[in-house]
Parts: sequence; C-alpha cells; structure tokens
Amino acid sequence: MSFSRSLKQKAIKVWEDGYNHPFVQELGAGTLHKEKFKFYLLQDYLYLLEYAKVFAMAMTKADDEKMLSNLSSITKATLVDEMKVHHLYMKEFGISEEEVKSVKASLFNRTYTANMQAISLKGDLVETLVTVFPCAWTYCDYGKRLKEQYKDNLEDNFYKSWIETYSGSDFENSFEWFYDAIDELVENKSDKELQKIEDIFISSVEFEYMFWEMAYNKQMSYIKD
Amino acid sequence: MSFSRSLKQKAIKVWEDGYNHPFVQELGAGTLHKEKFKFYLLQDYLYLLEYAKVFAMAMTKADDEKMLSNLSSITKATLVDEMKVHHLYMKEFGISEEEVKSVKASLFNRTYTANMQAISLKGDLVETLVTVFPCAWTYCDYGKRLKEQYKDNLEDNFYKSWIETYSGSDFENSFEWFYDAIDELVENKSDKELQKIEDIFISSVEFEYMFWEMAYNKQMSYIKD
Amino acid sequence: MSFSRSLKQKAIKVWEDGYNHPFVQELGAGTLHKEKFKFYLLQDYLYLLEYAKVFAMAMTKADDEKMLSNLSSITKATLVDEMKVHHLYMKEFGISEEEVKSVKASLFNRTYTANMQAISLKGDLVETLVTVFPCAWTYCDYGKRLKEQYKDNLEDNFYKSWIETYSGSDFENSFEWFYDAIDELVENKSDKELQKIEDIFISSVEFEYMFWEMAYNKQMSYIKD
Amino acid sequence: MSFSRSLKQKAIKVWEDGYNHPFVQELGAGTLHKEKFKFYLLQDYLYLLEYAKVFAMAMTKADDEKMLSNLSSITKATLVDEMKVHHLYMKEFGISEEEVKSVKASLFNRTYTANMQAISLKGDLVETLVTVFPCAWTYCDYGKRLKEQYKDNLEDNFYKSWIETYSGSDFENSFEWFYDAIDELVENKSDKELQKIEDIFISSVEFEYMFWEMAYNKQMSYIKD
Repeated sequence: MSFSRSLKQKAIKVWEDGYNHPFVQELGAGTLHKEKFKFYLLQDYLYLLEYAKVFAMAMTKADDEKMLSNLSSITKATLVDEMKVHHLYMKEFGISEEEVKSVKASLFNRTYTANMQAISLKGDLVETLVTVFPCAWTYCDYGKRLKEQYKDNLEDNFYKSWIETYSGSDFENSFEWFYDAIDELVENKSDKELQKIEDIFISSVEFEYMFWEMAYNKQMSYIKD
Repeated sequence: MSFSRSLKQKAIKVWEDGYNHPFVQELGAGTLHKEKFKFYLLQDYLYLLEYAKVFAMAMTKADDEKMLSNLSSITKATLVDEMKVHHLYMKEFGISEEEVKSVKASLFNRTYTANMQAISLKGDLVETLVTVFPCAWTYCDYGKRLKEQYKDNLEDNFYKSWIETYSGSDFENSFEWFYDAIDELVENKSDKELQKIEDIFISSVEFEYMFWEMAYNKQMSYIKD
Repeated sequence: MSFSRSLKQKAIKVWEDGYNHPFVQELGAGTLHKEKFKFYLLQDYLYLLEYAKVFAMAMTKADDEKMLSNLSSITKATLVDEMKVHHLYMKEFGISEEEVKSVKASLFNRTYTANMQAISLKGDLVETLVTVFPCAWTYCDYGKRLKEQYKDNLEDNFYKSWIETYSGSDFENSFEWFYDAIDELVENKSDKELQKIEDIFISSVEFEYMFWEMAYNKQMSYIKD
Repeated sequence: MSFSRSLKQKAIKVWEDGYNHPFVQELGAGTLHKEKFKFYLLQDYLYLLEYAKVFAMAMTKADDEKMLSNLSSITKATLVDEMKVHHLYMKEFGISEEEVKSVKASLFNRTYTANMQAISLKGDLVETLVTVFPCAWTYCDYGKRLKEQYKDNLEDNFYKSWIETYSGSDFENSFEWFYDAIDELVENKSDKELQKIEDIFISSVEFEYMFWEMAYNKQMSYIKD
C-alpha cells in the first residue's frame, strides 16, 4: 500500500471513533436533533471559508500547472459546490444571510482551522496537503458508509442531501488526485520527515473527531461558564 | 468616477505606451514575428502560474464567502480557461510538454511576479487586488481595442484566438467585481494609504509595458552578454 | 485611557482568573508541584519557539525602521534572553538536550500558537501585535503581583528566577512600545475592525488561562483515553 | 568542498564582475563620487528593511532553537548594527530623517527584495537562506579584498567606515553559521532540487551586481524618460 493510502490506518482508532460518534450515526439514521445539525451547519460554513485558505496556501508552494489547476479546482469546488448543500439547509432552516453573518466560529472551530493554516504557513506542500486531507477523506468515507448502512430510510432522512453530497462521485473525484500527489512529494523524505507528515495527518483526524463532539454539544468555548 | 475606475487614468501614459507597443500593435495587425510570439507565449505561460498564486494569497486575507468564491473562480479561470489559449498556440507551434517544462522564466518575468507576490505577502487585501488588476484590465482593454482597430483582417490573423479570448465577455466578467470590491476596501483608507495603493497599481502597469518590451526583444536577462 | 491600555479591562474576568489559577498562585507561594512546573517548562519552551514566529510574521508587515528594529529586538529577547530562565530550570531538573528534543507540544499548546500564527498569516500588523500581546502583558502583570504578594518568602522560592524574570524591568521594557504602536495603528480603523482586534486580544488572554490549566493538569490532548 | 562553500564558484563570473564594478573599485580607492554613494546609501537603507523580512520569513520555516536564535540574532544585527554605518553616513551627508522617509525604493531595488521575499513565500528554509546569502557573502568578501587592495590610503578614505564594517569579524561572524546550516538542510535533496537552490543563489549574486550598476547610474526606473 502506498504511503498516502496507508495514512488512514495510522489514525484508524480515532477515524472509527469519528464514524461511531453519535453525531455521525444519528445523522445517518435521521434522528439527529435539528438544533445540533443547525449548530454544526453554521460552524461548518465558517470552517469551509477558512479551510479553503489552506488550499490557497498550498497553491503558493506548488510548482507545476497540473498541481496548480488541481488545487484551484478543489478550492472552487469547496467554496462554490460544497457550499450549495450548506445554503440548501440554511434555507430549509429559514436562516437569513444576516443571521449567518452574525455567527462566530467556536473556539474549537478556530483552533482546527488555525492548526491547518499554521502548518500551511510553516510547512511545505506535502505537509499542507496532508493537513487538509482528513476532512475530505473522512467525509467521503463516512458519507458512503452511512448511505449503505442506512439505505432503507434514506429517502425520508432530513439529512439526505448531506449524505448524497459526501457519498457522491463528484466529491470523491475532487480529491482523488491527492493520493498520487502525496506519494510523489514524499519520495525524498527522511524517516523523521515522514513521521512529521503522519503526525500532521493524524492530528487532523483527531480534530475531525473533536468537531463532531463540539457540534453534538453545541460547544462554543473550552471555558466552562 | 470611483477610486478603482480612476486608477487607469493615474497610469494613462504607460497604459497607452503599452497599447502602442510594437508587440501589441503587430499582434493586432497579425504581422508579429512568430518567434517573438512564441517567446511571449512560453513566458506568459510561466507568468500565469505565478500570477495565480497572488490570487491565492488574496484568498488568505479575505473575510467573507463572496470575496472568497470570486477569488477562487478567477484563480480557476486563470489556470484552466485562460491556459486553453496558451495550449492551443503551443500545439500550433508544435511545442511539446517536455519543451514547455524546460523553459525558464526570464529574469524580468520573475521580477514582475515576485513584485506581486511580495506585495501579497506584506500588504493587505486591497493592495493584493490592485497589484494583479492591471494584467487583467490592460489585456481586456487592449484586446477590445485591437479587435475593433484590426477588425477587417481578424479572420486571417494568426493571433485571432488571443484577441478573441481577451476581448471576450467571459474574460471581462471574470474580474468585473474588482471595481466594487476595491472601492469598498478603500473606504477607511488614509490619503497616505491611498497613495501607496495607487503606486502599486501604476507599478504593475509599468511591469505590463516592460513585459511587452521583454517579449519583443526575447530578452532573458538584464545583464548584457 | 488609550485603546491599547483599555484592552486589559475588556478581558478582565479571564485575566483575573488567570492570576488566581492554582498554577500561578502556587508558583508564587513556591508550593507548586515540581512535576507540574517541569511539564509547563517544557511546553513553554516549545511555545516560545512558535511564539517568536508570530513576531517574525509581524516584521513582514512592518513599514518603517523603528517598528522593524523593535520587533527584531523583542524576537531576539524572546529566543535568547527569555530562554535563559528555561535553560536554567532545565539544568536544575537535570533535563538533557536529548530529552528536550523528544518532547512534543501538547495539542492545546499547538492550538494556542497556531491561533496566533493563523492570525499573523491572515491579518494585518495590529492584529498580529494584539494576538501576541497578552502573553507578555499577563506575564509582566502576574510576575509583579506575585513578587509583591509573596515577597516574604521569595528568597526560598524554587520559582524565584521565574518571578524575577517576568517582574523585571528588562522584560517590561521589551514590549513597552506596544501600547503606542497599537494606538497609532488603530487610528483609521472602523468600529467593526476595532471589535475584531479586541476579540483577538481577548482570545489570547483566554488561551493564556487555558495554558495554566493545561499545565496544572499535565494535559497532552483533549481526547480522553 | 561542501555544497554551501562551492556555491560561490557557481556564480564566479558575476561575483568577480561585481568586485570589479566601478562602484566597488572607486569606493575602495576613495574616488567614488559622493552623489553616487549617497544614492546607494539611501537605496541600501530601504533595501535592508526589506532584506530583514526575508530572515523573518526564514524564521517561520525553522524548527529548532538554534536556527531560530541564529536567525533572530542576524535579523537584529542587520536592523540595528548594520544600520549604524548607514546612519553615520546619513549624518555626514546632512540627510534629515524627513529626507530619508521621502526616498522611494528604485524599481530595481524593489525587484531584488521582491525576488527574495517571493522565494521566501514559496520556498523552504534552505531556499530562503540561499537567496539572502550572496548579500552578506559578497559584502564580506569585497570588504576584505578592498581593505587589503587599498590599504595604503584607507585612513583618508571617506568610505573607511563602510569598508571597516563589512571587512570586520562581527559582520563575518553574523553569518558564519550559514555554511553548515545549508549543508545540513540539503542532505536529502534531489539533483533537481539542488539545481534550483544553486539557481536561486546565482540569481541573487546577479542582483547584487545589478545593484552596484543601479547605484553607479543613480537609476530609479527601467523605463527611459
């Protein structure tokens, strides 16, 4: 198995904890409390705006046309296409544009995106790619598994659009090129550098887990009131 | 006239010198030596890869969804759509992918893109927008004027695709939002800051002029051999 | 009171919570468990390396010699002078260089520095200054208050060097210029921008509080085992 | 010879052209027209402010305490110590602070510093180090050689302070650590990457040459009036 494809296994415990998190499972079953999803939706909206900036930073470190055009395509897909499902649910919830603008990112949300942005500031191209990778990869994996696991009541599931988006081939195709790109970029890396790259990947899988946890608890801050 | 729209007038002399440069005029007339255009084409290809990174840097400084999605769209348009005309002419010239990869950016080409990237590193969003603006705006202006001025023999012009691309509405629409965005971003600026923004804009118009000059002379370096 | 000097009051609750945190009070009294301080010491060592990078980012956004030389002086003071107290305690604890290199930043530690670095990537000079400011300001304030509060047994306090460093005039002088610099930089800011600057400042005071909490609990991760 | 020490030989022609440039030779002989030196002095002052930002960018990419403290020391040395000779000559010339602030960087000056800053934005630590290296290395080499070559009339030379500064051991010691640092950082580099690093180094030696040329001709712009 190539280096890139083996990364999931390196983070498998927290990866599976994420899939089994009540937020994800209840979303799949359609039983997730709508207030929790609404909280998630608005936080995820703010998340995506910051997440796109990490792709932008990756572009500044890229050397050739193919990498640059791939990165520009996924950035646009994130900001334009992936946002569609967010705006759809916002409409469903009757959330006005004013309300969206008044929402603040939770402290945890900010630390996750800050962590990726800081890595993109300090690190090289492959470090930047692996820090954003878990978001796309876990969503694709979870989306597909939820679709299969809960296929019998997908039609009635309020969260059907979410599941369809992330289990869909458009989404998967948008980052399919990551595997080969990462494998090519690590070719000359030392063991110490590879370990650092793995740690960055694992850390983002942990942040994904904690994002579900934050959303499930509608938690804005670490500091208890 | 708004601040953004008045910028052209601030740089009008070198703007017009650019339009009247032999490279531009001969391109419009269809008399430009193909070797000069080929030199330009390959340098401009390398230019666009670096130019896109300035839009990427602008994204890191943007705050809201609209700005971010506009920037991601123009970045993709630059790297995917605008590149099409380059690949078309490369094919026409029989330039292989290998040959493209072996070309180095001329010293002047590097200083122009480095200037924009350095501004994007040190400056704020509006400084970043005005440093990239002249490239799009002069090409759109020159393209339209050439199309009109040389309309009688456009069909037979080897450079017809170039003229059509840059005089076209797709190209113009890709950056039409710049005017309002800039005007909004300068609202609280002091006179000193406005002066700096103007200087950045004028400087890029000068770089555009020098790019034509470099291409016309197929000049790789400042240092005479 | 100037904008900069009023920032402390904006964050006064968590500022005082920080001073009253058991880690800080026990350090002042000399009763802090050495294992907790050792944990703190190594995490703070890693923190300072990352913290210095935020000053470096501020330099990239600075315009004049005075600001640049002030920033270069405080960066060097952080990495060379402030580190002396860390190396002193490391020696006291018999921590080898090898051991130092093997320590990893806790997840919380990384999120605090990542937050500052992300702000320095996306924001302007004053946003960058206010994100680093609470670290220096709270340490100076806490250091002086601890020195006064626990003056009767300072001589026997294992943490005397720490208290002397942060209550000292060298430390205070290293960032005294921040107040005027910030006040000058906010002159043209809109209310919305001022609010954002305040939020950034408050957020770092919160992170300072959470750093004491992390250290007191020797907490490496958010995820419970 | 190590990779780092062999870099000079890779750029030897333009390196020697720089030493033999009339600006450098006349400065050594003490015959350089003071107006040319004054032009140089003010441009070099603006240069150093931007040059320091490249060291700052290097800091953001550094991993360990030694590299960070070395970088912070050379940054401070550049902005505080090296500036002393500039302020000394400014005083000698009766240049007021107001006059200094009114000077604009020449277009060439801006392209040199922009080139280094753009490399520091896009590249890794070693690319950032080699782009700044020629400035320090050529000045140290030229300073020492001028001091020896023109030793008989050094006392009467108006430019004695300049020669003493750059031929001195403080200056040399400030960047002596570069050689080993570069050699360590290139250990895992591929031939293609090494070639890129060499090109970056050579390019900065060329820029150094062109800086003397610019200063000798008091040239503010490329565009002829």
